[in-house]
Amino acid sequence: MPSIKEITSAKNLQVKAVMELREKKARDDSGLMIVEGVREMRLARQAGIFFQQVYLARSFIDQADHREFVEFATKEAKEVFLLKDFIFEKISFGHRQEGALAVCAQPRKQLADIRCSDKPLFMILEHVEKPGNLGAILRTADAAGVDAVLVCDPATDIYNPNVIRSSLGAIFTVAVVEIEAPEAFKFLKSKGVVICATVPQAEKVYTEADLNVPLAVVMGSEDQGLGEFWVEHCNTPIAIPMKGKVDSLNVSVSAAIVLYETIRQRKK
Amino acid sequence: MPSIKEITSAKNLQVKAVMELREKKARDDSGLMIVEGVREMRLARQAGIFFQQVYLARSFIDQADHREFVEFATKEAKEVFLLKDFIFEKISFGHRQEGALAVCAQPRKQLADIRCSDKPLFMILEHVEKPGNLGAILRTADAAGVDAVLVCDPATDIYNPNVIRSSLGAIFTVAVVEIEAPEAFKFLKSKGVVICATVPQAEKVYTEADLNVPLAVVMGSEDQGLGEFWVEHCNTPIAIPMKGKVDSLNVSVSAAIVLYETIRQRKK
Repeated sequence: MPSIKEITSAKNLQVKAVMELREKKARDDSGLMIVEGVREMRLARQAGIFFQQVYLARSFIDQADHREFVEFATKEAKEVFLLKDFIFEKISFGHRQEGALAVCAQPRKQLADIRCSDKPLFMILEHVEKPGNLGAILRTADAAGVDAVLVCDPATDIYNPNVIRSSLGAIFTVAVVEIEAPEAFKFLKSKGVVICATVPQAEKVYTEADLNVPLAVVMGSEDQGLGEFWVEHCNTPIAIPMKGKVDSLNVSVSAAIVLYETIRQRKK
Repeated sequence: MPSIKEITSAKNLQVKAVMELREKKARDDSGLMIVEGVREMRLARQAGIFFQQVYLARSFIDQADHREFVEFATKEAKEVFLLKDFIFEKISFGHRQEGALAVCAQPRKQLADIRCSDKPLFMILEHVEKPGNLGAILRTADAAGVDAVLVCDPATDIYNPNVIRSSLGAIFTVAVVEIEAPEAFKFLKSKGVVICATVPQAEKVYTEADLNVPLAVVMGSEDQGLGEFWVEHCNTPIAIPMKGKVDSLNVSVSAAIVLYETIRQRKK
């Protein structure tokens, strides 16, 4: 078990290095990511991810009911740092500041890591820019028991700390694979999967489509809709009916409506 | 039609007044709100909301395809201001900066404003703190054609500019009423409504519940779950099955799953 080192200055180089990992470039270059929060760190570790560094806030470590977690986190880490609260605040982000954070290697899963069920269900994502939406989709993917989420867009930043945080750690429980669209298509075809996408002009309402088959549900950008590739390669275009004036559902909402209808049909 | 006044200094008092409206206190005191974006402003106006002031960025007004909107916005406004882009950036927020923004009175709808359908469908919200989640729920409520959204929690800040923005204007197309929980309950009972809520311990899966009745779907906080009042007054506790390890769906996702199952059942 490593000894706990104290960091007493906000100008500490280690602190700066963590702050740099908020930038995509620094993450891409180093292959590292920030995992913040007790639940998120536990799920990362369960997924076989090691903690290169663990950072704990003074007020966190002082609470008796954190003792077991502190033991777990320090035992599993290469290095452990104890930070004054105001320094921890610098490396933390968002609202749910808990006082525990780890730096880890990105899992970067491959197609070979996917364990396919008999009647697989895949989620394909393209241009889901907002970290909160991506996090929400990963939580839904975890709950719906999808076989994998294929992210077919290099611009989508799956190791953004806000994605990890808003996924509540689902990014570690679901097989998330970054992949080019044609390669994803080849993989899906090899599994005999029907490709289904919400397309505004589709005539078939999603509840009328047969989703009780090996299935991939494709979701595109809220602003620009689905890209050409997936429109062309979609077997079952579906529509989610909308009665109102705004005529636009949040992308994580649309994904959930189709995934949970799939579960309903498969249960019958 | 008002003449367009130019604002050339970022220290302009008018600019400062708009920036102050990002704070809840200033909005509560003045009864005003910020409506940013072309779509959002159009939907606000369609809902009978007048523009007290309209702010337009130079680069916005210079684009030929904005001419019709600029005419509409200036005709409908008491005052119109033209801002250099760097000054507009100060009053704008978020990513989707378009270059058009209005200050308007908050609609503050009442129960009497709700037009109930024969088999009404209500959404009840408690402790939905995140503006993005609330905005996404309002878009779902618009698409699902709910009769009203009742917000039973003074802490939920429905006129937060990020709620308005992330609702894409759905906050103006849906009857959103802020109300105390007991008063909401009295209203729902007077309409013969069944109150349905997702409760983790519920035995009945939501697809097995009869949602083809006058219905109110209650959603609570993601962190703390549903408060005591609605747990006590719920007629039909339901569960959304979750297969994964994270065991938590985003609140806007949960709301959509139940609302769209209601639509499915009612269509059969």
